Amino acid sequence: MTATALDVEYVPSYVRDAWWTPGGAVPGTGVRDASTGELLALVSSDGLDTAAAVEHARTTGQDELGKYTFHQRALLLKDLATFLNGHREELYEVSARSGATRRDSLVDIDGGIGVLFAYGSKGRRELPNATVITDGAVETLSRDGSFLGEHLYTRRPGAAVQINAFNFPVWGMLEKLAPAFLAGVPTIAKPATPTGYLAAAVVRLIMESGILPAGSLQLISGSARDLLDHLDYRDMVSFTGSASTADTLRAHPNVAVGGVRFTAETDSLNAAILGPDAVPGTPEFEAYIKSLVTEVTVKAGQKCTSIRRALVPRALVDDVVAAAAERIRQRVVLGDPRAAEVTMGALASLEQLEAVRAAVRSLLEAGGELALGTLDAPDVVLADGRTGPAPDGAFMAPMLLTWPDADADALHTVEAFGPVASVVGYDSVADAVRLAARGGGSLVATVCTNDPAVAAEVLTGIAGHHGRVLILNREDAASSTGHGSPVPHLVHGGPGRAGGGEELGGIRAVLHYMQRTAVQGSPNMLTALTGIWHSGADRRFDAGHPFRKPLSELRVGDAVRSDLRTVTLEDIAAFAETTGDTFYAHTDSAAAEANPFFPGIVAHGYLLLSWAAGLFVDPAPGPVLANYGLENLRFITPVAAGDAIRVTLTAKKITPRETDEYGEVAWDAVITNRNDELVATYDVLTLVEK
Amino acid sequence: MTATALDVEYVPSYVRDAWWTPGGAVPGTGVRDASTGELLALVSSDGLDTAAAVEHARTTGQDELGKYTFHQRALLLKDLATFLNGHREELYEVSARSGATRRDSLVDIDGGIGVLFAYGSKGRRELPNATVITDGAVETLSRDGSFLGEHLYTRRPGAAVQINAFNFPVWGMLEKLAPAFLAGVPTIAKPATPTGYLAAAVVRLIMESGILPAGSLQLISGSARDLLDHLDYRDMVSFTGSASTADTLRAHPNVAVGGVRFTAETDSLNAAILGPDAVPGTPEFEAYIKSLVTEVTVKAGQKCTSIRRALVPRALVDDVVAAAAERIRQRVVLGDPRAAEVTMGALASLEQLEAVRAAVRSLLEAGGELALGTLDAPDVVLADGRTGPAPDGAFMAPMLLTWPDADADALHTVEAFGPVASVVGYDSVADAVRLAARGGGSLVATVCTNDPAVAAEVLTGIAGHHGRVLILNREDAASSTGHGSPVPHLVHGGPGRAGGGEELGGIRAVLHYMQRTAVQGSPNMLTALTGIWHSGADRRFDAGHPFRKPLSELRVGDAVRSDLRTVTLEDIAAFAETTGDTFYAHTDSAAAEANPFFPGIVAHGYLLLSWAAGLFVDPAPGPVLANYGLENLRFITPVAAGDAIRVTLTAKKITPRETDEYGEVAWDAVITNRNDELVATYDVLTLVEK
Repeated sequence: MTATALDVEYVPSYVRDAWWTPGGAVPGTGVRDASTGELLALVSSDGLDTAAAVEHARTTGQDELGKYTFHQRALLLKDLATFLNGHREELYEVSARSGATRRDSLVDIDGGIGVLFAYGSKGRRELPNATVITDGAVETLSRDGSFLGEHLYTRRPGAAVQINAFNFPVWGMLEKLAPAFLAGVPTIAKPATPTGYLAAAVVRLIMESGILPAGSLQLISGSARDLLDHLDYRDMVSFTGSASTADTLRAHPNVAVGGVRFTAETDSLNAAILGPDAVPGTPEFEAYIKSLVTEVTVKAGQKCTSIRRALVPRALVDDVVAAAAERIRQRVVLGDPRAAEVTMGALASLEQLEAVRAAVRSLLEAGGELALGTLDAPDVVLADGRTGPAPDGAFMAPMLLTWPDADADALHTVEAFGPVASVVGYDSVADAVRLAARGGGSLVATVCTNDPAVAAEVLTGIAGHHGRVLILNREDAASSTGHGSPVPHLVHGGPGRAGGGEELGGIRAVLHYMQRTAVQGSPNMLTALTGIWHSGADRRFDAGHPFRKPLSELRVGDAVRSDLRTVTLEDIAAFAETTGDTFYAHTDSAAAEANPFFPGIVAHGYLLLSWAAGLFVDPAPGPVLANYGLENLRFITPVAAGDAIRVTLTAKKITPRETDEYGEVAWDAVITNRNDELVATYDVLTLVEK
Repeated sequence: MTATALDVEYVPSYVRDAWWTPGGAVPGTGVRDASTGELLALVSSDGLDTAAAVEHARTTGQDELGKYTFHQRALLLKDLATFLNGHREELYEVSARSGATRRDSLVDIDGGIGVLFAYGSKGRRELPNATVITDGAVETLSRDGSFLGEHLYTRRPGAAVQINAFNFPVWGMLEKLAPAFLAGVPTIAKPATPTGYLAAAVVRLIMESGILPAGSLQLISGSARDLLDHLDYRDMVSFTGSASTADTLRAHPNVAVGGVRFTAETDSLNAAILGPDAVPGTPEFEAYIKSLVTEVTVKAGQKCTSIRRALVPRALVDDVVAAAAERIRQRVVLGDPRAAEVTMGALASLEQLEAVRAAVRSLLEAGGELALGTLDAPDVVLADGRTGPAPDGAFMAPMLLTWPDADADALHTVEAFGPVASVVGYDSVADAVRLAARGGGSLVATVCTNDPAVAAEVLTGIAGHHGRVLILNREDAASSTGHGSPVPHLVHGGPGRAGGGEELGGIRAVLHYMQRTAVQGSPNMLTALTGIWHSGADRRFDAGHPFRKPLSELRVGDAVRSDLRTVTLEDIAAFAETTGDTFYAHTDSAAAEANPFFPGIVAHGYLLLSWAAGLFVDPAPGPVLANYGLENLRFITPVAAGDAIRVTLTAKKITPRETDEYGEVAWDAVITNRNDELVATYDVLTLVEK
């Protein structure tokens, strides 16, 4: 379907901070309205300088993004999400050309904006207001504590090439952009040609907003051409699409041996298992049918996560087919999404329609039996509301297949990427597990059961083969986000056939764009390098009480050490009396001595904490606004009556907020006894004015 | 060097829980003593059924390992470490045949046993006593809290093929075995042929110990042959060795497109940067020279982590060469490691010697200049203490090269995997960063400086190119574990040329052998599936006070809810008085009202905690032995005088210890006010008798 420019335009690319289209004489690929066949645009990247795009990302993109902290980048994502949220209607209109109904567009467009919001929020709540992320605990590597090790994540010094699939042009682009951007790595997005015009429309809005720094997003509309030739170990490729394209990309020398970090999310033959307990009449059966029909019809079944294999107790195959068919009959109106009553749209293109039909034919040849639907072209509701044939529209009615042989290879390997699912009988839960695993690695499986034993058996059996498992029962049927919907909080991807990659999962996806490096050094050096005070590093006791310092003056290492305060038996008894905490270790000397950990009556841990606060607090109003929490408290040496405690409080981590006049300060607190033994260690969390 | 069996034996393999050697007529590769050239053994895997080995791992190995929890597996590792520790002397003797001095053997053998100890300890301290690991926070995915998501790690359902390098036959095998074993994934170890006899000696001891479950460890001595043909997405390959072999393995269809999880650690051209401040006479200069000489001479420089590029201020090149040469002159005695005075042994084989000489020749041709050493065969100390030539020994004296052109390609790409390093001048710290990155991705770099600004500039510039960075200064020079020593606590590996993989890093390496799966479901379902009580799941209030139940009776969800207790202004004043915590929010009503977060005078957070303990505690002696800590405390709604609080305590996580008569119980604690608003949430950590 190659054409030259007549009265349609090229879908533009955006490289090196400028829009780009090929010269007029370049032939392009025509893209058409999925419902009407109308020619919408031409697509070509012929003549685009991909090497320059990569270099621009590595230089301008890295430099500009490097000027922001995680919190600042997260705020930019939030601003962008808010901006795009105000332009959804124009995007819905463009989206309808791809055969997407309003509900489909909500998944793609609102879903994509939702990912931006999620990273805008998580970036500020879960990351430091810095450019480096520490990972895990500090490890003490020498007996004297002078040599420590810890892990730091820093952004990778290259470009993030993001190759997206045709089915979610908006969500696919934004769910990859958001974590890369948050990490500080510039994106080169390459949408799929059939729906790339919608991605380009989004990029057009993004550039109009002026929110993103220069170089942080480039767009290649059309073939990626020789893009991978210019990548090396500093760069990343994140791919969503078919397994065969993923394999081609993986075989590129720069990926196969050149160290380009490659991750793929490919469609898979996802299973939905109906538990033996979920018989007709149960809420689980109803939820299962609803989910099956949703997955077959939303986006006309063009979802990597869609249910392809409905694994149900053998005796229930007919019930499931009948119930699903009935729900489809009641709910599904196939047609041009611009007609109001339509609930299911077209496939993305006639080519896609042909590919799905071919896959169905090979499933039928392999032993599948048609239980619902037909390969014939359906009559549909047209844009003007009339019903009739749509010869230039990529329409296909929902299809269900059944299988006399649940072990037929094609059932577990051939995917019809459209409104098609197989309903397959299993003999036992173990058999269902076995069949699910025959998919060779999947993005997601649903287990529909209200029996925790069934859920546990299935999960144990299939977790290693799946990226996500949804347990559907009466408790979450109404609130579940559904089998087919990745959420930004949870990883999306799966082993084997599903591509072997991971996306999303909150901050996990940000780390994908970063390098984890073990750093070893002295406490002072690690304090200097991370901005976080490390135990054993220098403290400053002579700079006044640190509670008197606003964030602008406070430095990590600023500290206060109290005098000793003696704990008497009377103190312990009084504390037991007023708090009601009369646990025997504080009140009954014989019983306390019999306890394996206590020398006799000991002070309450909460007494020690409370006194420590009394010892370190500076009571008058000042920049410290509140103690909002506490972390990592460990009681180490018990304190018997007659012993004394002191506390040392050190500013450990300072996190000014971008949008408030205060920020968080975590304080390292150490309570020691008369012999300088550790009594308790913890982090005190406070809010402090800027 | 193919030979047939005369009076030497085959190095045995261990497959399907039995020892295996090829039939007598099979030709084998001869392996020889590195110092004397004596033929030690033949190596061949001809006729070994690799498919059966993989199948055995996936069946027996998975089944048997599946019978143990993480804590139980960790204890087995500890037992194995203790057992091997008692057999070190016999291993040192075998190790000496590879040219290893006692110090070299300590790195390899004691280092390997140390990894077992580390995982034996970390597995019990940092993992649950279960078979599934939860990852990160629970995500609430619906407004009503009825739909949650979280991430679980379960072991991958295949085999862990571990291909090791010749330079660390013991450490290399054990550092891969330990995390895979802890994960519950069976190992097929494939040592490098030249020193595989030492790995086989270790496996011999391991099998004699009888500690490991059936199928959990197999050994292929000799070529891996068609092993990879039998792997799929369930399996993993962890490789240590040359970049070219890694590339060959990566190109195998089962790895390239079949979804086998592949990780590689290849040698790299590691840099050591001498800071501008670390001039002769400083402790840093001294530490740098010591480190350089150590890295060039230990294991005769045959370490993936060795320093290959000493990047020093241009003006100090001669000083560094002179100081290193002097230290080598004073300290290094080259010879047969069986001679007492020898401090540096042979390369592993004559083939290796030739390869290193060839690499040095190409470095010299590319512009390197010989600053120390020679390519001629050195006289060495022989086993009997005499000094003389050793024509059949793989000896090479330490060599240093200098470079008029710091940008010569060969300097940054050609590795002489022996006692060879280049000393290279840089012009500025930025230039040093640039040169370090020219290695194209490295395992480790040292930055030797006492200036935090230099350390920060270098770290920022090179972290993305490195797996580990050591900051060496006067504070850690004596206690540092050194540039070239991976430690089990920190990741080992690096991007690009270093292979792009990660090993070790404590539990991080265990997760490498597991699949991360997002699981969605209701609080009750996630509680049932994880064994951890989830907020929103059912509680049992009617089963007696949970503090009266030993671990054998306590179940997650067992809970107690207190009555309301009113907090008066007098209570707050008294608490301020006795604890000394007279912070204005508790004592000064006008100042408290001016605080943005408080309605006026509020109760101390520690008062609330202390009272909550009084409200939930069951005071008489019982199975609850101690409160050893607290986690995740957040104060949410302040409590003003006149309000009241109650606490709900729920058994959340129960972790019986394997080696004690008690275990840990984490309790979910929720303090609410009179209006059932959340006042505070936290986890109380206790020790409870079995």
